[in-house]
Amino acid sequence: MNAQTKFEELEVGYDVPAIPGMDEADIQTPALVLDLDALERNIKKMGDYAKAHGMRHRVHGKMHKSVNVAKLQEELGGAVGVCCQKVSEAEVFARGGIKDVLVSNQVRDPQKIDRLARLPKLGARTIVCVDDIDNVADLSAAAQKHGTELEVFVEIDCGAGRCGVTTTEAVVEIAKAVNAAENLKFSGIQAYQGAMQHMDSYEDRKAKLDIAIAQVADAVEGLKAEGIECDLVSGGGTGSYYFESNSGVYNELQCGSYAFMDADYGRILDKDGNRIDQGEWENAFFLLTQVMSHAKADKAIVDAGLKAQSVDSGLPFIFGREDVEYIKCSDEHGVVADPNGVLKVGEKLKLVPGHCDPTANVHDWYVGVRNGKVETVWPVSARGKAY
Amino acid sequence: MNAQTKFEELEVGYDVPAIPGMDEADIQTPALVLDLDALERNIKKMGDYAKAHGMRHRVHGKMHKSVNVAKLQEELGGAVGVCCQKVSEAEVFARGGIKDVLVSNQVRDPQKIDRLARLPKLGARTIVCVDDIDNVADLSAAAQKHGTELEVFVEIDCGAGRCGVTTTEAVVEIAKAVNAAENLKFSGIQAYQGAMQHMDSYEDRKAKLDIAIAQVADAVEGLKAEGIECDLVSGGGTGSYYFESNSGVYNELQCGSYAFMDADYGRILDKDGNRIDQGEWENAFFLLTQVMSHAKADKAIVDAGLKAQSVDSGLPFIFGREDVEYIKCSDEHGVVADPNGVLKVGEKLKLVPGHCDPTANVHDWYVGVRNGKVETVWPVSARGKAY
Repeated sequence: MNAQTKFEELEVGYDVPAIPGMDEADIQTPALVLDLDALERNIKKMGDYAKAHGMRHRVHGKMHKSVNVAKLQEELGGAVGVCCQKVSEAEVFARGGIKDVLVSNQVRDPQKIDRLARLPKLGARTIVCVDDIDNVADLSAAAQKHGTELEVFVEIDCGAGRCGVTTTEAVVEIAKAVNAAENLKFSGIQAYQGAMQHMDSYEDRKAKLDIAIAQVADAVEGLKAEGIECDLVSGGGTGSYYFESNSGVYNELQCGSYAFMDADYGRILDKDGNRIDQGEWENAFFLLTQVMSHAKADKAIVDAGLKAQSVDSGLPFIFGREDVEYIKCSDEHGVVADPNGVLKVGEKLKLVPGHCDPTANVHDWYVGVRNGKVETVWPVSARGKAY
Repeated sequence: MNAQTKFEELEVGYDVPAIPGMDEADIQTPALVLDLDALERNIKKMGDYAKAHGMRHRVHGKMHKSVNVAKLQEELGGAVGVCCQKVSEAEVFARGGIKDVLVSNQVRDPQKIDRLARLPKLGARTIVCVDDIDNVADLSAAAQKHGTELEVFVEIDCGAGRCGVTTTEAVVEIAKAVNAAENLKFSGIQAYQGAMQHMDSYEDRKAKLDIAIAQVADAVEGLKAEGIECDLVSGGGTGSYYFESNSGVYNELQCGSYAFMDADYGRILDKDGNRIDQGEWENAFFLLTQVMSHAKADKAIVDAGLKAQSVDSGLPFIFGREDVEYIKCSDEHGVVADPNGVLKVGEKLKLVPGHCDPTANVHDWYVGVRNGKVETVWPVSARGKAY
């Protein structure tokens, strides 16, 4: 803990929203705040679940973009490493000491392939997804150039409608080409059904995953028939991990949002019809904001707008408050309906953002709090690493 | 121009999307690209307009968050300084050498007020908005503490429904309190009608501005009746600046988006019913993206999703292309409808983002291009400065 715990005592700059040791009430807004107790409980719970079900858990680093959070997931949740979506993110995690890194995405640009092929030199097992046989020669050439080995997952599009092949024949064809190429190794299948994660109903989600699991099982059988070993079958998110874990086909999970929670995920329902943020997972991720104007009696203006969060999945809700509501978001302001005029200028509110991933991506820092005190300030290490 | 113009020649890191001197085709994606010719023409055109109409132009730095762009606006567009929305942004512009900085927003937090009161020490005239008489004593105390002078605009809510007072009585009351306070000076009125800027019809926008102008004129008269000089009347955006410029009431503009343009602003119509991005202003701001998968015949997957842009004001359009359409945006991917299968993996497309301000705010760099070459790489200096 730092001896300096107030901003007034800093001689230069204010480029962090908080200083370890200061009161939570003194955090500068808008700022991302992590409830460390809730975060740790979420991480431990998912880790225990994965262990009990014999699943590896490769946590999704694209959600938090933080080496510190990834290491906490290894330490408390038994995570085997991370997945992420961009080579520039993978560089940050590998430099940060994560030893098993999957780019759960296609890498096609020559410069990016070159960067990817250097990653094993940092000591990280490096895996990348392929959905096009034309990609294999380029990956192999770069790995040979750098004297490294790249592992490959063939990506199956099992319903998300983005990258990935759709037939077992294509999976087998690419896997064969990978194993025939120098400095490449076929290591498994990437099959993440991203499109169903946010469907409210458990039964609707199950129906989509049943289809995905059957498709992946067919691919695994197809590989086996050709004598190709499929070490890892990887996928699963916060809205589906129990399906993959009980499938008998998948052996690696890729959950991300469970650790933080957000408003959009929180709304989906568990098997018993309860919101998953009311029992299954705790809200650990907040956007702290402050009332900066109350010139109209029934509206408070707060300092967190579009530059402090993403509203692609809806507006934030105000944690623990039923009497006030965040109703409008512009570039720099949020409008909070305050029909009874209970809010005061200077008062702080904890927002639960609509979508955690792109909200984390606009901030430079996480402020970790426990028992009303700032315990740590972590960089959002891979913020903006989109290339 | 740097002698190193290819990434392969860099010995360490790839933390920039481009190197000056390289071909535009080699920029790593996703990246923000500025067409320097178009940008300079936009800046010069607005500067000429302001000059011809006797208006000061205080350019809105919250849009681009770039010291380099602000200085270009001073140099080519005769800008008198910047406005911005946050104290942390104002710090960046003042440190960067901008000599006249308005925080066109309320500053209420004690720590932020303290930081604001230090800004004049950097050599910048510092102006802040007030909409609550309770703010005056705090600003005065901080300015006295630091031995500086803060200037104050009283903010009028002339239709945006956010911060600002709504009566001439309140304007006069606050202006008097400011002039009575030590180390503060009342310098004018902030009256930006943000809610009408994006209305499609010129006549609808005019109707809203007519109301705003009448409201502001009443306030100016009210101040004059009390013997209070109102030096500056400041406001106006890309969708309204001609109304303020011809009002006889305003004498300072605050335009931002005109310099870059975006899809949402581009759709609004000028007096003759033409889109403003087809004549009035040029698209100078692009999100360069690359096709990374084309596993389905009629869909290309590109590498710019929610982490590379804000979709609060709609999806981007693809510049100069009628044959393909960006139809879906997820965290890391964009789905481009390609009904005729014309796109190839590796091909790059220039997106015009829906909303320039929050899109700029997720990137670390602007890549300035001219004649197919990268001329400059500018930092998004105040990126993430939301506090």
